[in-house]
Formats: sequence, structure tokens, C-alpha cells
Amino acid sequence: MIRVMGIDCGTEFTGFGVVEQNGKSLRHVASGAISAGESGALADRLTHIHLVLCQVIQEHTPSHVAIEEVFYSVNAKSALKLGHVRGVALLATSQNKLPVAEYSPLSVKSAVCGYGRADKNQVQQMVMRLLKLEEAPESEDAADALAIAICHLHTSATLQRQKSGGTIKK
Amino acid sequence: MIRVMGIDCGTEFTGFGVVEQNGKSLRHVASGAISAGESGALADRLTHIHLVLCQVIQEHTPSHVAIEEVFYSVNAKSALKLGHVRGVALLATSQNKLPVAEYSPLSVKSAVCGYGRADKNQVQQMVMRLLKLEEAPESEDAADALAIAICHLHTSATLQRQKSGGTIKK
Repeated sequence: MIRVMGIDCGTEFTGFGVVEQNGKSLRHVASGAISAGESGALADRLTHIHLVLCQVIQEHTPSHVAIEEVFYSVNAKSALKLGHVRGVALLATSQNKLPVAEYSPLSVKSAVCGYGRADKNQVQQMVMRLLKLEEAPESEDAADALAIAICHLHTSATLQRQKSGGTIKK
Repeated sequence: MIRVMGIDCGTEFTGFGVVEQNGKSLRHVASGAISAGESGALADRLTHIHLVLCQVIQEHTPSHVAIEEVFYSVNAKSALKLGHVRGVALLATSQNKLPVAEYSPLSVKSAVCGYGRADKNQVQQMVMRLLKLEEAPESEDAADALAIAICHLHTSATLQRQKSGGTIKK
């Protein structure tokens, strides 16, 4: 059994999703989106995001965390804003002694939908199907975070198979 | 008496400097630079920076924090890296219930040297003179952080004079 938490950092909402894998079966444990809030000092908004992420980690005890790599086509101002959120998210994982893996948006979409150009709606539909959810996750950010967690589980499973003697065809 | 901590966030080194003002006299309390380290996971490096900043705050008990605004001419990749560090620095201040003020590099140089185009060496010399230091601070980052703290003290003093009945000439 392995439990992974995916984090989808954003300047408005930060999604989180905890997924458990037992054998080949995947189960949704928790998910949601943390609002950065529109008012209040930046430092206080970051404290709120950090606090909620720490609470989720402590309540749902994932053993690994997966986070999305940043897409550099954003401008410097957006990258800085996103960096603030990502910094406190990475801090929350390290303070809780959890290893973090990073995946590009392309890898996440490929792992979940089978191809890297899937749109938000397709990601949401596949997350629902893979986790056997009757309803869509609370928000796109929560769905993205669940997709990142699933991507990590798929990637770890592949690496595990390769380590345990699987051959790679060239 | 007022004690201000300046923080100069950087991707390689993060400078800090605590300055105390008593009447018109300024005193150097503490300063230094925290290395982000070249090896190790990003999350662990951020945890180290956050931990040292929290220790400095708890040991030297500033009542206010001042931090430099980011200069947007940097590219998105650098802005993201700087954002990570800035996020954990802002978190450290908010977790310790300290108000944070932000100043542009131009304001800091103007406040300390009298003009906004001063170079690093001029900032260091003026910081030494204003704080009556016999030796230069440990590093340029520490000197910059002390300059940010001095900028905040000068700005607060000006605002205070204006509030207490000073007139602004047009």
C-alpha cells in the first residue's frame, strides 16, 4: 500500500489530492483546493496555504508527495507569484520529512489520459474514472492535484517493474 | 526603541540584518547570510533558510520586517527560484506575527546612500558609516539586508513626522 499526495500550486488556488494504491487498485482519500484569498497580506495568505497543506499531510499521512514542474512560458511576475506558493508547499513537505517528485504537465497528462495535450475536462473525466468517483472533484485544481498523484503512482510502478528485472525494449 | 530585520532574498544567499533605533541612534544587532547550498533537494534547502530566519527572529526579536521588492527584469526561471525563497521568508515573518514592509531597490539605495543608482560597494560603505561598524558586514547580502532595515527605519521616521503634524510642501 502506498499513499501519495499531489499538489497543484497556483496563484489563486492550490489544489491537493491524496490517492492510495493497494495492489493495482487506486482509491481517492482526500482532495480539495485552498484559496489564496484576494485580500490580506501576501505573507498571511502564504501562511494559510502552508497551514492547510501541513494539516492535510498530518491527517491523511501520505508517504510521498508529487508536485507539478513549472511551465516557463509564464512571465516573470507570474513566475514570482507562483514561486511564493511553491516555496511554502515544498517547505511543508520537507518539514514533514516527505520525499517530493516533480512532473511536467506533459508527463501528468500522458500518465492519466494517455496523451500530453489533453484538456482540463479530459483530465477531470479520467481522474473520475481511474478513482471510480461518482462526482467530479470539487474543482479543476483538486482534479489536477489528483492527476499528479496518479502520475507519480504510475511512474513509480513502472520504475519498480524496471528495477525488478523488466527489460526495456529499444 | 524599535528593532527592524531586513531580509535580502537571493537564489544563492539570503542576507539578514537586524538594526535597532534608539532616538536618532542606529545600532547593528545581528547580520549574516544564509547559503541555499548547491546540493540537496530544493525543499530541504528552503527548510534550512526558513529555519535560520525563524531562529534569527526568535533570538533578536525584531518588531518589524522589511524585504526588497523584486525587480521584474529577471527572467521567469530566476523569478520562480527567487519566489521559492521569498515565499518561505514571508512565511517566517507571518508565523512570528511580524508586519512586513516591502521596498524597491531604488528606495533602499536612496534611503541609505542618497541616490538610487549607488553600487554595492557604496551601499556597504554607507551601512558601515550609519551603523558605526569598524569592519564591513560579512557579505554583500548581509550589507544589503542591513540597508533594507535602515531604509524601513528612515521611512517610518518620515511617516511618523508627517503624522505628528508636519506639513508637506507642494
